[in-house]
Amino acid sequence: MIKVIARSVIKENHLTDALSLYKLLVAETVKEQGCISYELFQELDDPNNLTLVEEWDDMDALKRHTQTSHFVTLVEKLAAYEKELPVLIYKKLF
Amino acid sequence: MIKVIARSVIKENHLTDALSLYKLLVAETVKEQGCISYELFQELDDPNNLTLVEEWDDMDALKRHTQTSHFVTLVEKLAAYEKELPVLIYKKLF
Repeated sequence: MIKVIARSVIKENHLTDALSLYKLLVAETVKEQGCISYELFQELDDPNNLTLVEEWDDMDALKRHTQTSHFVTLVEKLAAYEKELPVLIYKKLF
Repeated sequence: MIKVIARSVIKENHLTDALSLYKLLVAETVKEQGCISYELFQELDDPNNLTLVEEWDDMDALKRHTQTSHFVTLVEKLAAYEKELPVLIYKKLF
């Protein structure tokens, strides 16, 4: 299993637009083979700070995810509304 | 439910020391009332980058956690081995 933590900062006045795209992204992604979980979180101190917390069977499943049409299309649209921070990929220790 | 993501960067040559403390911290914390999950992850690109991903029933449970003797003692010891990044607290959107 691998864990992915992907943070983004939504630009002022675009939270509603971004959330509607994220909602589609989550709905499509959880159907993917190899996706264990894929959840969107919002920071309590700043609602424009969002974080995807993802679990995938392995790196192959994650790579396939980034090649799906829903990922490519929605992430391209999201780029207009957000600044993405580096995507961090982890293994579980304990 | 609230989600907590707490990153830290372990100082050079102190990973083994830090991991033994984190192992104790995880083992004690998962026994706490109000703790849904508490897991330690290691970044694939840099093993000295660690991240705790936590789920708590509510803010009261998280606050009680930070007042437990295992948290206070182990976090104080960990401070010698790591640089903590800001702890981020989230709610789940979808």
